[in-house]
Amino acid sequence: MDRHLDEELEDLRQKLVRMAALTEEAIAKAIRSLVEREKKTAQEVLDRDQAIDLLQIEVDETALKILSLFNPLAKDLRFITSAMKINSDLERIGDLAVNIAHRSLALMEEPPLLSLGDMSRLAESSQKLVRESIDAFVNNDPEQALRVCSQDDEVDASCDKMIRVLLTYMMENSQNVNRALSLIFIARHLERVADHATNIGEDVVYMVQAKEIRHHVADDNGPSA
Amino acid sequence: MDRHLDEELEDLRQKLVRMAALTEEAIAKAIRSLVEREKKTAQEVLDRDQAIDLLQIEVDETALKILSLFNPLAKDLRFITSAMKINSDLERIGDLAVNIAHRSLALMEEPPLLSLGDMSRLAESSQKLVRESIDAFVNNDPEQALRVCSQDDEVDASCDKMIRVLLTYMMENSQNVNRALSLIFIARHLERVADHATNIGEDVVYMVQAKEIRHHVADDNGPSA
Repeated sequence: MDRHLDEELEDLRQKLVRMAALTEEAIAKAIRSLVEREKKTAQEVLDRDQAIDLLQIEVDETALKILSLFNPLAKDLRFITSAMKINSDLERIGDLAVNIAHRSLALMEEPPLLSLGDMSRLAESSQKLVRESIDAFVNNDPEQALRVCSQDDEVDASCDKMIRVLLTYMMENSQNVNRALSLIFIARHLERVADHATNIGEDVVYMVQAKEIRHHVADDNGPSA
Repeated sequence: MDRHLDEELEDLRQKLVRMAALTEEAIAKAIRSLVEREKKTAQEVLDRDQAIDLLQIEVDETALKILSLFNPLAKDLRFITSAMKINSDLERIGDLAVNIAHRSLALMEEPPLLSLGDMSRLAESSQKLVRESIDAFVNNDPEQALRVCSQDDEVDASCDKMIRVLLTYMMENSQNVNRALSLIFIARHLERVADHATNIGEDVVYMVQAKEIRHHVADDNGPSA
């Protein structure tokens, strides 16, 4: 095997791991700013988003360079195109962190509506899935990737539970509506972070096994009527 | 130029256009089911989602085949990797149509909250952006792609306006909260459809001009403090 290609692939992998670390940090900080009401931390998320955006471009350029210079086949080709897809998912997680930071800043202007322990736990669950999906990518581990996909439902359930609680706040007092809705949007953003982790997990399974699980086609009994 | 490669690229383009048509139809039907309270139309959206999912896989497989068999360079390479990214965006638009159809079915169980003319218009604006972004892709037209990106703010503004109206319904009567929140989620889904169109537009500009506009790097004055 071409050693030079291996080095380039390792470079691509490293850049994507750095991208994952930056987006994970962004989500963690955005939620910390919300829970601890830290304006400075929210501002850091906004300031550092450009680094994520620039790294996204760098990852794509690296992938295109490898595709141009080498003529990678089969496994390597799937690795590179998966890396480009995972890259997009990570960048969108970064955008979700920015959205949360903006809402967090707005919420700081008003008194707290409720204790946000459940939101912290939801954020931790979502971040854990992102971390595990990237580990699965780095370790070429389709089983870990499948575990990520199977845990997405738990995050969805926690999110729905939180939304139901926030709905009761809305119904109790119309003065709660604005703040509760902002918190509902934040919970939804965290749910979408977990969705991106699931997408990454599916890409890893495809990359390693060349098996398409994205839509569980094998489980279906032909097209619906 | 290799004629066979050209044919493969044209096949990829055609498949992506079909994918765009299916997702556009899905959004149109989902919104029609909501506005006209048509259960059957919502069910059609759910039934047809599998066709979109299968076509997504087919597009990716076609792209990987071209990358494997030919050693496409520069422009063609950017076309193929852009097609894979656009493919993901379209599939997620299909998922948003499914989410809207589910909410539409649930809303049909309750009396209408308000006239949904504004929602129809928001849906039309979002669909128009998707259509234009795909036209830009098919015609290699970066100017049209840039117009799509510049119109995204209008969709965001319409969505925010609708959410403000729905908030007043929530505040007026707690019995409105559930339905208003569902409609807010639908408006947000339509906003995300437009976001995907913007992503597609940015990919088209990159594809044609090899110029990275995704994060307007040229407009920035270095990294923020």
